[in-house]
Amino acid sequence: MAKRGVRIGLIGSGFMGRAHALGYATAARVFDLPVEPVLAVLADVTEEAARRAAESLGFARATADWRGMLAEVDVVSIAAPNALHKEMALAAVAAGRHVHCEKPLAPSHADCQEMARAARAAGVVTQVGFNYLCNPMLIAARDIVRGGEIGEPVSYRGIHAEDYMADPDAPWSFRHDPAGGGALADIGSHALATAEFLCGPVARVRGELVTVIPERPDGRGGRRAVEVDDIARAHLRFASGATGSVEASWVATGRTMQHDVEVYGTRGALLFTQERFNELHLYASDDPLGRRGFRRIEAGPAHPPYGRFTPAPGHQIGFNDLKAAEMAGFLSAVASGGPEPFGFAAGAGVQGLVEAIGRSSREGGWVEAPAASA
Amino acid sequence: MAKRGVRIGLIGSGFMGRAHALGYATAARVFDLPVEPVLAVLADVTEEAARRAAESLGFARATADWRGMLAEVDVVSIAAPNALHKEMALAAVAAGRHVHCEKPLAPSHADCQEMARAARAAGVVTQVGFNYLCNPMLIAARDIVRGGEIGEPVSYRGIHAEDYMADPDAPWSFRHDPAGGGALADIGSHALATAEFLCGPVARVRGELVTVIPERPDGRGGRRAVEVDDIARAHLRFASGATGSVEASWVATGRTMQHDVEVYGTRGALLFTQERFNELHLYASDDPLGRRGFRRIEAGPAHPPYGRFTPAPGHQIGFNDLKAAEMAGFLSAVASGGPEPFGFAAGAGVQGLVEAIGRSSREGGWVEAPAASA
Amino acid sequence: MAKRGVRIGLIGSGFMGRAHALGYATAARVFDLPVEPVLAVLADVTEEAARRAAESLGFARATADWRGMLAEVDVVSIAAPNALHKEMALAAVAAGRHVHCEKPLAPSHADCQEMARAARAAGVVTQVGFNYLCNPMLIAARDIVRGGEIGEPVSYRGIHAEDYMADPDAPWSFRHDPAGGGALADIGSHALATAEFLCGPVARVRGELVTVIPERPDGRGGRRAVEVDDIARAHLRFASGATGSVEASWVATGRTMQHDVEVYGTRGALLFTQERFNELHLYASDDPLGRRGFRRIEAGPAHPPYGRFTPAPGHQIGFNDLKAAEMAGFLSAVASGGPEPFGFAAGAGVQGLVEAIGRSSREGGWVEAPAASA
Amino acid sequence: MAKRGVRIGLIGSGFMGRAHALGYATAARVFDLPVEPVLAVLADVTEEAARRAAESLGFARATADWRGMLAEVDVVSIAAPNALHKEMALAAVAAGRHVHCEKPLAPSHADCQEMARAARAAGVVTQVGFNYLCNPMLIAARDIVRGGEIGEPVSYRGIHAEDYMADPDAPWSFRHDPAGGGALADIGSHALATAEFLCGPVARVRGELVTVIPERPDGRGGRRAVEVDDIARAHLRFASGATGSVEASWVATGRTMQHDVEVYGTRGALLFTQERFNELHLYASDDPLGRRGFRRIEAGPAHPPYGRFTPAPGHQIGFNDLKAAEMAGFLSAVASGGPEPFGFAAGAGVQGLVEAIGRSSREGGWVEAPAASA
Repeated sequence: MAKRGVRIGLIGSGFMGRAHALGYATAARVFDLPVEPVLAVLADVTEEAARRAAESLGFARATADWRGMLAEVDVVSIAAPNALHKEMALAAVAAGRHVHCEKPLAPSHADCQEMARAARAAGVVTQVGFNYLCNPMLIAARDIVRGGEIGEPVSYRGIHAEDYMADPDAPWSFRHDPAGGGALADIGSHALATAEFLCGPVARVRGELVTVIPERPDGRGGRRAVEVDDIARAHLRFASGATGSVEASWVATGRTMQHDVEVYGTRGALLFTQERFNELHLYASDDPLGRRGFRRIEAGPAHPPYGRFTPAPGHQIGFNDLKAAEMAGFLSAVASGGPEPFGFAAGAGVQGLVEAIGRSSREGGWVEAPAASA
Repeated sequence: MAKRGVRIGLIGSGFMGRAHALGYATAARVFDLPVEPVLAVLADVTEEAARRAAESLGFARATADWRGMLAEVDVVSIAAPNALHKEMALAAVAAGRHVHCEKPLAPSHADCQEMARAARAAGVVTQVGFNYLCNPMLIAARDIVRGGEIGEPVSYRGIHAEDYMADPDAPWSFRHDPAGGGALADIGSHALATAEFLCGPVARVRGELVTVIPERPDGRGGRRAVEVDDIARAHLRFASGATGSVEASWVATGRTMQHDVEVYGTRGALLFTQERFNELHLYASDDPLGRRGFRRIEAGPAHPPYGRFTPAPGHQIGFNDLKAAEMAGFLSAVASGGPEPFGFAAGAGVQGLVEAIGRSSREGGWVEAPAASA
Repeated sequence: MAKRGVRIGLIGSGFMGRAHALGYATAARVFDLPVEPVLAVLADVTEEAARRAAESLGFARATADWRGMLAEVDVVSIAAPNALHKEMALAAVAAGRHVHCEKPLAPSHADCQEMARAARAAGVVTQVGFNYLCNPMLIAARDIVRGGEIGEPVSYRGIHAEDYMADPDAPWSFRHDPAGGGALADIGSHALATAEFLCGPVARVRGELVTVIPERPDGRGGRRAVEVDDIARAHLRFASGATGSVEASWVATGRTMQHDVEVYGTRGALLFTQERFNELHLYASDDPLGRRGFRRIEAGPAHPPYGRFTPAPGHQIGFNDLKAAEMAGFLSAVASGGPEPFGFAAGAGVQGLVEAIGRSSREGGWVEAPAASA
Repeated sequence: MAKRGVRIGLIGSGFMGRAHALGYATAARVFDLPVEPVLAVLADVTEEAARRAAESLGFARATADWRGMLAEVDVVSIAAPNALHKEMALAAVAAGRHVHCEKPLAPSHADCQEMARAARAAGVVTQVGFNYLCNPMLIAARDIVRGGEIGEPVSYRGIHAEDYMADPDAPWSFRHDPAGGGALADIGSHALATAEFLCGPVARVRGELVTVIPERPDGRGGRRAVEVDDIARAHLRFASGATGSVEASWVATGRTMQHDVEVYGTRGALLFTQERFNELHLYASDDPLGRRGFRRIEAGPAHPPYGRFTPAPGHQIGFNDLKAAEMAGFLSAVASGGPEPFGFAAGAGVQGLVEAIGRSSREGGWVEAPAASA
C-alpha cells in the first residue's frame, strides 16, 4: 500500500535550504517513515534562482511567491534569512501548514512565544533546526545521563565556536544586525539547546556579551558599527541544581565546528565534540583501578538512528545525515500529529535563555530563565 | 532543458545495495551531473525482498530476475554476493550496459582481467567500489603528494583493519570460502588501492597470509575449516622506488574502520585515518624551527568535492556521501563515455596484487606485480 | 672553580616536599646554575619522619624544629600544609632567608600582600610554586602570543580540573577548611596564573563558587559540613581588553590533570592541555587555504629549557622536570639577587584574583582585580 | 644504617651519558634502593671534556683513561660510541665489574653472545639500555597481556620511527658505518625488544632493509656512500603462534618518537605510542554493547613504578625518569646479585633478530631467530 504523500514547500535554497531538501530526500529512503515526503515547491527570491535550485534539488515546481505556495503544500520548511522567519512561519501556521523553521525562530523571546502559541492554537506540528541533537552519539549521551550511568550530573561545560567572523575585514552582514542577535543567537543557541537536552532545564543564567570587532566594511568603502556579540559566555544553574557554563564565539580563529560538551557526574563523565561527532567519550568510575579511562566509543548500530544510515559501525554519518534524521523526526510527528520535541516551544525556550543572557550582560547579575510555558 | 535520464538497475539490497541506491539519489542532488539517474529496477533473490527494498529505496520496479532486468536499464549496479559478480558483470557487459560492481570483482586475477577485457571490447564504462578514494581528504592527499609538497615520497604504510570476524564463534560464511579470498581480498584490497592511489603502481610484493581462527561454527552444530586469511601483511616496492607495507585484518578487536595511511616524503609527511576521515594531517619540513608539527586539516570547500555536500567547513561528510561521490564519478563517465579511473582494469590491478601477495605467502619470497595492461 | 654553595632547608616531605628535593637535585645537574644547591636540612613534624625523608632524599640533616633550621640555611623551601605557609615564610624572611613557598601563599590576599611586603623589605628572593609556567611549551606559547604570531589575542579559556575530591565519601580534610580556600585557591590559582602569564593582567572578574558535596565524612563516624568551593567559574576581562573565562574543579570525575588553555587571536590560535604537556597546538591564519590546521608541535630543544633535560625532541619531560626548571629559576634569582617573575608579589596577585572571584560569587556582579602593587 | 655504596664509573657524557648520570641520581632519590649509587668517576675522550661533564653531573673525579678507571669503581656504565661497546664491556667484565651498556651491544650477534658469555662466566650483573620497557604503561601492557585481559594475543604491530636522518644533507656519521648497523640496529632494536617484552620470543622473521639516501656529505666537500638501512620492515612469527610486524625508520619526516605498539587479542586490544607515553589505550570486548571503546588510561600510582616519581596520577613522568627506572632495576640487581631481565643475554637476543632480519633481506625468505641461549 502506497504511503500518504506529504507535500513539502521549501523557502530558501542557500546552505540550509539545500540541507533541508537533501534531508527530506534521504529521510524518505533511510527511515521507514509512515509518510512519503514529496518535494513539491521551492520558493526563492527570484523565479530564476528558484527554478535553478528546484531543478538541482528535485522539486516539482519553483516560485518567487512563497505566500502563493502555501496553498499547494502540507509542510513549509523555512530556510530564509532570519529576519523573515516570523512572518513566514505565522503565515504558514495561519494557512494550517506544519512548519519546520531554522533557528533562531525570531530575534525576541516574545516573538518566539507568539509563534509557538499560534502553532499550538492551529494544531500544527512545528520544528526548529537543532540538528546536532539528532546525532546518535548525543542521543546516547542523553540516555547515559538519564540512565544514571555517570551518577548524578553535577557540572556541565558547553561550547559552540567557529571562525566565520574572525576576519576583521569580513563585511557587515544581516548577521550583524541587532535584530539578528550575534554569535549567541546564531550558534550559542545550539550550545544552549544541547545543555538542556543533556541536563534538563536551565533555571538561571549569568552572562556577558562581547563585541570584538567593533566595525566592519559596509561594502560601500566605509565601515559600519557592529552592535552584536562576537563572543558570549554564560554561567548556568540547571533546575536540577547542577551548574555549568556555555560559550559561543564566531571569532574563534581555527575552529570550524567546536561544539564541545563535557558532563561530569558523581560516578562518571562524558566528553563530546562535534569536531569528531561520530565519537563519544565515556568515563566510568567503577572500571577497575588502573584500568579506568575515557572510552572512545565509535558510532554504530547500537546507537540509533545510526543503523538507519549504514549497518556497519565506524563508517560514520555526516552533517547532511544529521539533517535527514531531523527531517525524519519532523515527518514522523507530522504523520502522527504528535508533538515534536524540538518544536517552536523549545525554540522559544532557547531564545528565552539567549535573551536572559543578554539581559544579564547588561545588568551584571544572575537572571532567571523565562518560564518554559509559552 | 531536462537532462538525459540514465536508468539504473541495482542487483542486491543489503548493506552495499542500499549504499548504491542512496549514493545515486544523493549524487543527483548534490553534484551538477550531466545526466539524471533514474532508479528504475531493483533485483534481489526473491520478488518479495526486491519489492520491499524497491519501495523503501525509491525504485520504480522490483524483480527477482536480474537477467530480465538488463533490457530495461542503461546501467547495472552489482551489489550481490562476491561469487556472483563475474557472471552478472559479464552478462551486463554483453548486453551493452555500463556496470558498477562492488569489489572484489572476482576471486582470481584472470577472471578480473577477463571482465576488464570484455568491458573494454564492449565499449562500456565500468567502475569498482573503491569509495574511500572518493574522500576529499584522500584526494587532497594525492594532490599534495603529486604536487611535491612533501618532497619525494619514500615510505608508505597502509592498514585496513576491522573486527567483524574477531569473534571465534562468528559462523562460517561465504566470506570464508577460498573463492571469496579472505581479509586481504575483502578489505586489504582497499589498502592496496589507496597505496597505488597515493604513490603510484606497486612493482612487487612480499606477503604473508595468516589464518587465526582455523574453524568456525557451520550453523549445523559442527565446525567448518577456514582456509582463507584473517590477517594479511605485505611489503611493497613501488615502481617509483619508494617502499612500504600494507596490512589487512578482519580480526582486529576494537577496530571498526582502521583504514590508516602514513606517507613520508623527503620534505614532509601525511597521516590519515578513516576513523576520522574528515581530517588530514600534514607535516611540512619548511615550517619554522620550533613551529613544526602535523597540521590537523579539517575537510572543507577547499577540498573538492566536499563543497558539493555543504559549503561550511568542518561540518563533515559521512560514509554514504563517499558513496555518492563515487556514483557521481561513475555517472559522469557514463555521460561522457570517458574512462573511469577506478574501472574494471583498476579492479583487476588490485586483484593482481592480492594474488601476488598470496603467492608470495606460499612461496616465501618477492613476487612481481602483474603487468597493469589487462 | 667551585660554585658557591646554597644551603637548602626544606620544610615538609610529602608530595610537594619530595618534588622540591628532586627539583633542586635535578636542577643542579641539568641547568648550568651559577650556584650549587646543597641539600642541608629537612624539617618535618616529627624527628623520625624528617630523618627517614632526609635519608631517602639526600639531605644532610633532619629536624623537627623548622625554626631552629633557619640559622643553618640560605634558602627555605616551604612545602608544609597551607595553613602554616604564612608563619613559616614570615619567619624565614625575618631571618633573611630566600624563600620558596608552595601556593597558595596564604588564605587571604591581605596576608599574601603582607608576606610580599616583608620579603621586599628584607631584600630576599621569593618564589611561589607555579610549576606549570616553567613548561617549555607554555613558555613557547607566551612567546608566540607576545611576538604577535597569532595576532591580537581576543579570547581566552582556561581550565584546571581534577577529580581528587569527586568521591562524596572522600573524607573532610584541611583542604575543606574555609581558611584553605577550596578548588579555586588550590588549583584554580594555576589556571589564573596561566591566564595572566599568557595574556597579561586581569582587570576584573565575575565568578561563582559552587559546593557540590555539602558534607563529608569527618573520620569519626559523622559528617562535617563543607563550606569551600568544589567548582569555581569566572569570566575575565584582561587589562588588554581581551576577555575570557577560567574554571576550576576538583570533582571533575575522570580528569587527573585537565589544565587546558585556548587562546584565540585575530590571526591564529593556541591550544594546550597539561594532559599532553609536551605538545602545543598552533593555528596560523596565513597558512595556505586548504592546508590550514592546528599544528601539533612536539617539545624539543627549540623550546627552552627543554634542551637542558635532553637534546632529543619528542623524548619528553615529566612533572618532576617542571619542578626542576622552577627550582632552577629560583636559584638563578638567588644567585643574582635579581627578581623572580613568580615571586610572592605574583602569588599575592593570584590570591587577589581568587578573592575577587569569591566576592563576585557572593555579590553577583563584576569585581575589579586588586591593584598589582603589593 | 647507611646503605652500601656502589661506585659508578661512567664512560661518555653525550646525550646518553648524561641520561645515565641523571638516571642514577634520580633513582637513588625516588626508589628505595638497597644500595646507594656514588657518582665516582666520569671518563671521556679528553680530560677537559671529562672534567667539565663531571662537574656538571656531580661526579667526584674525571679521567680520559677509561681503563684506569675500572679499578676504582663497582659498576661501569657505557655510553660511548657503539663501536667501542664491546671492547669496553669485555674489559669491565674482565675486571669483575657490573656493566650497564647502551644498545646496540655490538654490531654482530656473535659479538653480543661473546659479551653475554663473558659476563655470565664472570658472574657480574649486566644491563642493556632498553629504557622504554621501564615505562609503567608498557609494564601495565605486559601485565594485561600476560593476565589474559585481552584474551589470546594474535596480532602485533610495532614501529619505531624518527626523522633524525631524514635530511639528505645530514652528514655521513658513525651511525652510517656498516658496523653500526643502520636504523634497524639503532632504533628498530627498541621495536623488537618491545615486541618480545609484550608477546614473548620471536621464532622467525622476514624482513627488508632499505637505503633511502644512498650517499651523504662526507664533511670534506664530497659525498660518501651509505650502506646501512634507513628503513627496515619485518614480518614476525612469535613462538606462541601469534604473528606481527615491526618497522624501523630514521627518515620518517615529522616523527620524533613514534614508538607505537598495537596488540590485538581474541577478547581485547592494546594501543600505545611513545609520543604520549603516559597513556595506554585498552579495549575490552566484554564492555557492554554500545559502550565499548578504547579506554585512554592515564599513568598513575596504580601503574608501578609511576608512584615512585609522584603520587598524583596524570602528572606524568619524562624520558629521564624512564632512564632512572632503568638504573633502579640495574642497581637492584647489582645489590642482590640477581639476574636483570634486560641483561646482555637479552641484548644479544635482540641483536640476533636484527641480524636475522638483515639476512632475510638479502636472501628473500623467512629466517629462524637464533636460539635464545647465548
